[in-house]
Amino acid sequence: MAFEDRENNHLAQQPFGQVPFLSDGELEIFESGACLLHLARKNSHLIPSDPVGDAQTVQWIIAALNSIEMVTVPWWFLEISGVEDNGLTEWLANRLDKIEKVLKDREWLAANRFTAADLLMADVLRVPKVRAFGDRPATERYVARVTNRPAFKKAYDDQLAHFAPAD
Amino acid sequence: MAFEDRENNHLAQQPFGQVPFLSDGELEIFESGACLLHLARKNSHLIPSDPVGDAQTVQWIIAALNSIEMVTVPWWFLEISGVEDNGLTEWLANRLDKIEKVLKDREWLAANRFTAADLLMADVLRVPKVRAFGDRPATERYVARVTNRPAFKKAYDDQLAHFAPAD
Repeated sequence: MAFEDRENNHLAQQPFGQVPFLSDGELEIFESGACLLHLARKNSHLIPSDPVGDAQTVQWIIAALNSIEMVTVPWWFLEISGVEDNGLTEWLANRLDKIEKVLKDREWLAANRFTAADLLMADVLRVPKVRAFGDRPATERYVARVTNRPAFKKAYDDQLAHFAPAD
Repeated sequence: MAFEDRENNHLAQQPFGQVPFLSDGELEIFESGACLLHLARKNSHLIPSDPVGDAQTVQWIIAALNSIEMVTVPWWFLEISGVEDNGLTEWLANRLDKIEKVLKDREWLAANRFTAADLLMADVLRVPKVRAFGDRPATERYVARVTNRPAFKKAYDDQLAHFAPAD
């Protein structure tokens, strides 16, 4: 399905015309971050059930959305728009340096284990243009660590299979 | 306290050097969105306790952070950097039009009542440069509705009072 059509179909339920959109019983949720939080809370595989682990996971989910993606996505958007001098580059470098520093000291972001926060952060950081920007070995290892998990590979393959008939 | 010093003091606990930082018992949380979620969940004044109302509130909190602020903040940053042609203006107009459309039909974002999502969305939309961009009467009324609440005015005055001695 063309992106334009997809936007029109979703607009009634999703005011910004984005996917994903989640329908679960009487719940209808847009915003990928909110969908992730809802699905992850259904069991403790992706969010620890203790209050500290839960809060740490939510904190890093919000950090991925609001401290990293808030810079990477507009920077990426300006890059592909072909602007001569991307005014967000210094901000991007600063944020990516900070997350590199965090990832030097730990394997996972929250609660010393893999959580939904890693799923989201790795998804934000694995964007090819972002990944190619600067030299950040700890981030590179982290992205590989998350995306090489069998569950990630399966989800990715399933997603591609889902969209294949529409192309 | 100068912003530079403040960043250094917080960096141990807050990797991106931002405020706020929340300490609550054994919990330590950075990211304003995560702090808001944590504080709001302590009772049902700011997040409804039923699953649908809760999910709607979380969804609109994430929308404020990841669909609106993701565009308004970088756009604002480029504006104050004095770029000649702000490459994010079209995207900003699009997102603000979408939220205007939402706010034409309802008084509050989630669960037909004031929630933490309104607190955050109004805080994102009340930035003077954003507020001055375009003609969006429903958004304007919404921002006024939230910021004129006695609790908002008190919090704002308290915050200014807190920073006053440092200036």
